[in-house]
Amino acid sequence: MNNISDRFTFIKQVAIDAGKLAVSYYHQRNKLNIEKKKDDGQDLVTVADKNTEQFIRDQINQQYAQDAIFGEESGYTQGKSQYTWVVDPIDGTSAFIFGLPSWCISIALLDEQQNSQIAVVYDPVHDELFHAMAGHGAYLNDQPIQVNPVTSLNEGLLGVGISSRMPPEHIIPFLDKLLHAKGMFVRNGSAALMLAYVAAGKLIGYYEPHLNSWDCLAGLLLIKEAGGVMNNYQANDNFLLTGNYVLASSPEVYQQLDTFLYSS
Amino acid sequence: MNNISDRFTFIKQVAIDAGKLAVSYYHQRNKLNIEKKKDDGQDLVTVADKNTEQFIRDQINQQYAQDAIFGEESGYTQGKSQYTWVVDPIDGTSAFIFGLPSWCISIALLDEQQNSQIAVVYDPVHDELFHAMAGHGAYLNDQPIQVNPVTSLNEGLLGVGISSRMPPEHIIPFLDKLLHAKGMFVRNGSAALMLAYVAAGKLIGYYEPHLNSWDCLAGLLLIKEAGGVMNNYQANDNFLLTGNYVLASSPEVYQQLDTFLYSS
Repeated sequence: MNNISDRFTFIKQVAIDAGKLAVSYYHQRNKLNIEKKKDDGQDLVTVADKNTEQFIRDQINQQYAQDAIFGEESGYTQGKSQYTWVVDPIDGTSAFIFGLPSWCISIALLDEQQNSQIAVVYDPVHDELFHAMAGHGAYLNDQPIQVNPVTSLNEGLLGVGISSRMPPEHIIPFLDKLLHAKGMFVRNGSAALMLAYVAAGKLIGYYEPHLNSWDCLAGLLLIKEAGGVMNNYQANDNFLLTGNYVLASSPEVYQQLDTFLYSS
Repeated sequence: MNNISDRFTFIKQVAIDAGKLAVSYYHQRNKLNIEKKKDDGQDLVTVADKNTEQFIRDQINQQYAQDAIFGEESGYTQGKSQYTWVVDPIDGTSAFIFGLPSWCISIALLDEQQNSQIAVVYDPVHDELFHAMAGHGAYLNDQPIQVNPVTSLNEGLLGVGISSRMPPEHIIPFLDKLLHAKGMFVRNGSAALMLAYVAAGKLIGYYEPHLNSWDCLAGLLLIKEAGGVMNNYQANDNFLLTGNYVLASSPEVYQQLDTFLYSS
């Protein structure tokens, strides 16, 4: 337990320090060289992503050299302990590049059974640190947070995401059903941040047809610790590498949202 | 001309001061009593909207008592001059209420021919003041801004909006076509702010099936002054009261977006 608690204290500070580094790039974003991943104009990476991930890796390697690290930009580095850090140095890279203030740093810690033990999502632009340790509740800065106690989709905003990894057919019918049910959506470009917003009650839920593990493991633990419900993201043993869809929300609206995925 | 120039200097300061007032409510938003408009859970108003509009009205009445004012919350007040101020005290009220940092103050000035002469969009959370005077270019704080010089929808993010005023059929096919064209969208809940983002090149365009005049007149002048193109929002003589659809973007992608509105 202390191992996890110590890592929790450690990684919160790492996220804040990484945020300072990322923000310094954000304020000079016009000077960044932008690369396309797989020649896809909507999937971008910059030196800000790479260097922020390297900073987080360096911090972990100094303090917990035996832990494994799985990062969006540099892949998997094997460890000798039971722990794996899952790191997205900048979630919402497009927003970051274009000067939209909706991006964040997302870090989760998995144990030997691949259960999430720690979640940290840090939004440095607004200085909002969302954090949770399994079994100990979720927090925004020093305030405990809970999912929004809505009973109807008409009472709040749902976060949605889509990427070029999935065809439009996986999101368009969902949006159509949501709007017909008097719901409303936002898409700010950062899945990790929108998931943290669900945990904090700012959004009532989140749906995306496919998310990589680094995008969502921290957000999912935050939501769980804040009283929300979600699909079994880890249903596939290989979820860390292959990802899965994500549907997470306040308990009372989950079943209705779930029907949107399957009904014609 | 001096009349307009003086009003421009005046209203920029009013927007900043109104922003300070609105932010003070935002930081205490949990204490606000939220009312539904027309029993619609997605169309909300608070004392923050009403008092911020009243503050702006008071400032205008003190300095330019002869000008007409048309505000979202208190409607039309006739004037004796050739000028009409069009005011949205808080655009993005849902975002404001739920603690999402994407809302703004939007003010436009119309002349006797109902042409926009001044535009101010102020985002107090990020201290971003977008402003334009007809014929004199658009600015973000003290920097001139221009629309993003993209030539393809794959090169940036489009802003979209939808409200309960229009059925889902007016937005879903558009989103479907956008995604199939390798485009991507954001919806942050504030049309005025997303239009300002188009002017500043942060978004490559914006579409919403219906916007009220207070939501978009400032944003449209900003985009025009920043080199963008748009539909003729004022095609209907009664646009001030009835609104219209809005499609605005960087010049090179406008025609393609326009086909999404009409093709099957």
